[in-house]
Amino acid sequence: MASQPPRVQRLQIQMAALNLDAIICIQPTSTFYLSGFNPIIYSDPVLIIFPRQSAPVLLVHALRSTHAKSSAWTPTIHLYGTWGPTSTLAPTWPAALTILLNHCDLPPHPTIGIEHATLPPTQHTLLRHTLPTATLTNCTPLLHASRAIKDPDEIAHTRIAATLAEKGMESAIAALAHPTTSERDAVLAALQSMHAHWVAHYPTIEICDFGSPEGGVNSGLTAWVLSGPRQSFGCDNPTSRVPRPGESVSVFVWAVANGMHAELERTVWIGEVGLSQRRAMGDALEIRTEVLRFLRPGTAVRELYRAAVRGYEVRGYGACMPGRIGHSVGLGPHELFFVEEKEERMLQAGMVVAVEVNILVPAVGGACVQLSDTFLVTGEGWERLTRFAEGGVRVRG
Amino acid sequence: MASQPPRVQRLQIQMAALNLDAIICIQPTSTFYLSGFNPIIYSDPVLIIFPRQSAPVLLVHALRSTHAKSSAWTPTIHLYGTWGPTSTLAPTWPAALTILLNHCDLPPHPTIGIEHATLPPTQHTLLRHTLPTATLTNCTPLLHASRAIKDPDEIAHTRIAATLAEKGMESAIAALAHPTTSERDAVLAALQSMHAHWVAHYPTIEICDFGSPEGGVNSGLTAWVLSGPRQSFGCDNPTSRVPRPGESVSVFVWAVANGMHAELERTVWIGEVGLSQRRAMGDALEIRTEVLRFLRPGTAVRELYRAAVRGYEVRGYGACMPGRIGHSVGLGPHELFFVEEKEERMLQAGMVVAVEVNILVPAVGGACVQLSDTFLVTGEGWERLTRFAEGGVRVRG
Repeated sequence: MASQPPRVQRLQIQMAALNLDAIICIQPTSTFYLSGFNPIIYSDPVLIIFPRQSAPVLLVHALRSTHAKSSAWTPTIHLYGTWGPTSTLAPTWPAALTILLNHCDLPPHPTIGIEHATLPPTQHTLLRHTLPTATLTNCTPLLHASRAIKDPDEIAHTRIAATLAEKGMESAIAALAHPTTSERDAVLAALQSMHAHWVAHYPTIEICDFGSPEGGVNSGLTAWVLSGPRQSFGCDNPTSRVPRPGESVSVFVWAVANGMHAELERTVWIGEVGLSQRRAMGDALEIRTEVLRFLRPGTAVRELYRAAVRGYEVRGYGACMPGRIGHSVGLGPHELFFVEEKEERMLQAGMVVAVEVNILVPAVGGACVQLSDTFLVTGEGWERLTRFAEGGVRVRG
Repeated sequence: MASQPPRVQRLQIQMAALNLDAIICIQPTSTFYLSGFNPIIYSDPVLIIFPRQSAPVLLVHALRSTHAKSSAWTPTIHLYGTWGPTSTLAPTWPAALTILLNHCDLPPHPTIGIEHATLPPTQHTLLRHTLPTATLTNCTPLLHASRAIKDPDEIAHTRIAATLAEKGMESAIAALAHPTTSERDAVLAALQSMHAHWVAHYPTIEICDFGSPEGGVNSGLTAWVLSGPRQSFGCDNPTSRVPRPGESVSVFVWAVANGMHAELERTVWIGEVGLSQRRAMGDALEIRTEVLRFLRPGTAVRELYRAAVRGYEVRGYGACMPGRIGHSVGLGPHELFFVEEKEERMLQAGMVVAVEVNILVPAVGGACVQLSDTFLVTGEGWERLTRFAEGGVRVRG
């Protein structure tokens, strides 16, 4: 139950500038962003009612009452639904919302922001009927712009996620040093060590993530390992495949701490790998260095991509250019925007960005470099939050 | 790369009855349902184009090309996007979709089903512009009706998920037998044993789950543990709290195998618990037995709830009646429908339902029973897929 974070006031100022009387959120990341409460299971929607002139109000199902009260930093929590003897505003969330809005001191014809990017038509229709006199406008861009600049609590949690990811990477690599370790064994080693480190060191930190309305994600401490020809999959469940000498292996670790993510990805070499593989790693590191010169406030995000394009082309990788070389990191491991040509945003201090200058030469036996770190954009430039050693890691001789 | 499952033909017959020329899906569970492909990361949408008169066609981003080809059972896979030298239909999915639809032999003014329950307005607008001559109708009810009746491949995977859940439960309970085990320690024990069992016994099974477009779920093997007063939370990340003698503890295990889930939940007693707790467990088991008499084809789902209501009331729990006593299980641990008064569906053979006759007496020191199993509705009645011993489990003396 932390105090109200700076994003509340920042959003209210923006809401005033946009003449929004209130915003209403249902998207799990948004309701967490404006309350600190993640029920993990979202079968019953969580709502945030955020009037321009007062603090966000949390509306949750009766079933989540004690959990919400123990987690949320929002001063006011209301309940809907029917569950045992718990007293609620109304049996359904639209009915409860109507009651709440009548107490919010809104004008008779308010302008209310809702999330066009994520709100399904059935929920949209319910909101439309609940707010017959309101003008509904899209508040997704407003929320995204706010989320892009991390608050101090969010940066502190991203640092913890980065530390957890480092532990996972360390253990996956240690496991791969054994000649019988499969992709799955390496993943298990990473999961076990991240969870054990969390248990031992972060008693007040939650590692749950955001799932779909059909499920819940209790642990967002995640790893996957792709070996040899499977590197080109980019993402997959690990298999029983044991990496062979001379192959390279991509190790991906994503961690989360109180909703904030960190991404750390490395390439592991099983013994002696070919020259093209070693050269690709050197090239990827050089390109990344060139890209990072542009990672500072006031530069356009697409300048990072353009620097990478120049770097790939000059080193002969023009034909296997990735369509993007990174993404924003925060309430999702892949949130808000990609580092790509069509992105129009400017970098600002407080952004968190994964820069991944990967190389995948698709020919048989072609080189593959997977290399991603999570960076904080600072006033002067950047800080690398995932502090694992750069470059390829050689195991087994 | 299994062969085409029965749901394809079943849906086509329904599409004909509804005069649908095709359906187009973007929702991750739907695209997996009609292709067998889960990219885990959904930052770039996966689409299914399913004409009434031919097999589903999968449309994925170039980045997911090799992964899709190795996983999907759909005979045809097309690509969009720009990634290295991979040849694609078009740079964006709407443009690729336009090209594909021109080859689908649809009438000039087709009726196309899209997912109203889940499709956000931005994607709806893109589809609307891509299909200017089409009438768009809601195919969510059609998909949900089909998903509710599991195919043989889905039932086989649900059995595997149930076995994994049993392993997790066994290990969580074994961990709780030690007097210093915290909620987190018990969760870790469950996660470790489920993953180890998966690695050892199911080389061809994936345990990934469905996340949001901002993230991915590499492992859906999940456990959580709530002790003492925290039982009322219903769901939460585990804490460092060590359960005390005389307390009861809720243990929740959810597992997944190739997209299909199973749920298994039990109550563990730390040493001697009070009479009200033991009596509540006996009552919950009796009520469940009464409910299960109605779990057979041709009964309305709400009859299960009504049987529970009668059972709670007659035993003095009328004041703490839960709002529902179960839910459909499948591509989500909480999918499609709840077992509640307002549900209008009939039970059919092939449905998979978690029946959870829980008791939560909210008074201080009140009893709490968490008891859930995953049941398959069979021709004659039901089969319990999670075969863990019923009743309260006593540890530590």
